[in-house]
Amino acid sequence: MRVADIGESGLLEMLTARASARGEHWIGDDAAVLEELPARLLYTIDVLVEGVDFDLSFATGRDVGWKSLAVNVSDIAAMGGRPLYAVTAVTLEPDTTLDVAQGLLEGLEQAASAYDLKLVGGDISGGRELAVAPAVLGVPEADGPVLRSGAAPGDVICVTGSLGAAAAGLLLLKGEVDAPQDVRARLEDRQLRPRARVDAGLVLAGVATSMMDISDGLLVDLERLMLASGTGCDVDVGAVPIDPDVTRLNVDAGALALRGGEDLELLCTLAPRDLEATAAVLSERRLTLTRVGTVTDTEMIVGGKRIEEWGDLGWEHLRD
Amino acid sequence: MRVADIGESGLLEMLTARASARGEHWIGDDAAVLEELPARLLYTIDVLVEGVDFDLSFATGRDVGWKSLAVNVSDIAAMGGRPLYAVTAVTLEPDTTLDVAQGLLEGLEQAASAYDLKLVGGDISGGRELAVAPAVLGVPEADGPVLRSGAAPGDVICVTGSLGAAAAGLLLLKGEVDAPQDVRARLEDRQLRPRARVDAGLVLAGVATSMMDISDGLLVDLERLMLASGTGCDVDVGAVPIDPDVTRLNVDAGALALRGGEDLELLCTLAPRDLEATAAVLSERRLTLTRVGTVTDTEMIVGGKRIEEWGDLGWEHLRD
Repeated sequence: MRVADIGESGLLEMLTARASARGEHWIGDDAAVLEELPARLLYTIDVLVEGVDFDLSFATGRDVGWKSLAVNVSDIAAMGGRPLYAVTAVTLEPDTTLDVAQGLLEGLEQAASAYDLKLVGGDISGGRELAVAPAVLGVPEADGPVLRSGAAPGDVICVTGSLGAAAAGLLLLKGEVDAPQDVRARLEDRQLRPRARVDAGLVLAGVATSMMDISDGLLVDLERLMLASGTGCDVDVGAVPIDPDVTRLNVDAGALALRGGEDLELLCTLAPRDLEATAAVLSERRLTLTRVGTVTDTEMIVGGKRIEEWGDLGWEHLRD
Repeated sequence: MRVADIGESGLLEMLTARASARGEHWIGDDAAVLEELPARLLYTIDVLVEGVDFDLSFATGRDVGWKSLAVNVSDIAAMGGRPLYAVTAVTLEPDTTLDVAQGLLEGLEQAASAYDLKLVGGDISGGRELAVAPAVLGVPEADGPVLRSGAAPGDVICVTGSLGAAAAGLLLLKGEVDAPQDVRARLEDRQLRPRARVDAGLVLAGVATSMMDISDGLLVDLERLMLASGTGCDVDVGAVPIDPDVTRLNVDAGALALRGGEDLELLCTLAPRDLEATAAVLSERRLTLTRVGTVTDTEMIVGGKRIEEWGDLGWEHLRD
């Protein structure tokens, strides 16, 4: 069965039926009605496109649904907020199988459930490629939101968790490297089902002077953070936490940690005096915070050389 | 110049520069921060896809930007609300000219300005086709929101404005019919730059028992409204207001008014006692409200026959 066999109305019925079962409100009206909202909200949208952000030859519809919502939730987490509501635009190629379409919806629901947000509406259109664009509303923690622009010279630069797993997972999925089965499964999962660091973001909301998620690679995102804050940095490449499984592969693990995106870990700055206590609070939640450098006045130095000298810093859309 | 020549970061810089000039906040952080919001909001998303919802052989980038936002604003209007904020996901084919890309942004801005809403963020991705998915937040009038489900037997069924112009405009743009220049220009404009009926929606918010916008065609949208309300209808085809210019073309004007979508007029129901006063208030604003039928208990009757007998009722995505 292809989606063209049941059409938009059939798909919407499928959605409505699923959503009703969970006590939510999907479609049915021209817009969703949200009640009892706080006065301050966070608002973001990210689109994932077939052949660019995912490949249906190794990602299932469920993976795509999960990931498209997770990357948006990550943007809310990066501001020190928690997600509340999402509406999602979906473009489907008419020959898409119902299996993929249904999986997509299930993946969206799984992620919505995991991050405790409500899918309240959406739109489905035909097109030549599969694309999913969830828009997410969130609420910042009382101390937040944390912007990219607040880093000050002297602050320490930190990352949550470890880096490189999602990029390594992509290499495994593409068959470009090999790995023992348990390592493979875990790293592929990090690529296909990345986790947004909402818990870490909420803890950091109270102390971070600036924050963003690492979605395009540490180097490129570090440059963005420093540019937004009008500061420089001095980053110790040796201090960057590399996913331990990545170091077991026949790859340049350090390069994947510096340039690989999609780990959805958080990159932040905080006053040196806050580092220890914050790391301790995160540690109680089994989350790690690693200092990788210091905010400086102007130049961006990574591993002893200027950031421009690193060449291609990471992923950018629409570049030849 | 193609978008691939400047890449995503170049495009985002272009956006940021434009947005800053107008005192707004586009991108710059992972999510936009919205302040002093009311506790109740309307939330919607609609995606427009190249080759399905628009054709770049006759629509400019500006047209596409305008229309993509207008159809979303129309969904807010259809609930009896006014738009406040939008975030927009844009997918661009790398060979898209900068002219089209820049026009797209200008069209979005023009519509945002016309409907007094703020574009607060967005995302740009590469892809194989141009697609624009704005998500819009709005606020319902104090008496609203108006849902699709509130029609009751005995209510009158009304439409704002007149129908068929957008569909006729499409035929003109495709060269399938001909028209005098002034008529052509106006009808093509109705297809390329449809207007959301925010003003009418705000007036109707206080009285309509159910409402939606006519985006896919009167017949199909009427059926949706009645299904949502669990009611029937008796519609007088002769009473349906046809755009006067459409009647000057060598087309079945009545068919375009019944089946053509995209006029973004409002379809609503109200108690018979409210009809005259409401039409008078709208008339002061140069808006019209026309009674086309009555809500009944069960069967949907249009022009004396059951609605199913009309065959294909209007536009549906993803049908062969």
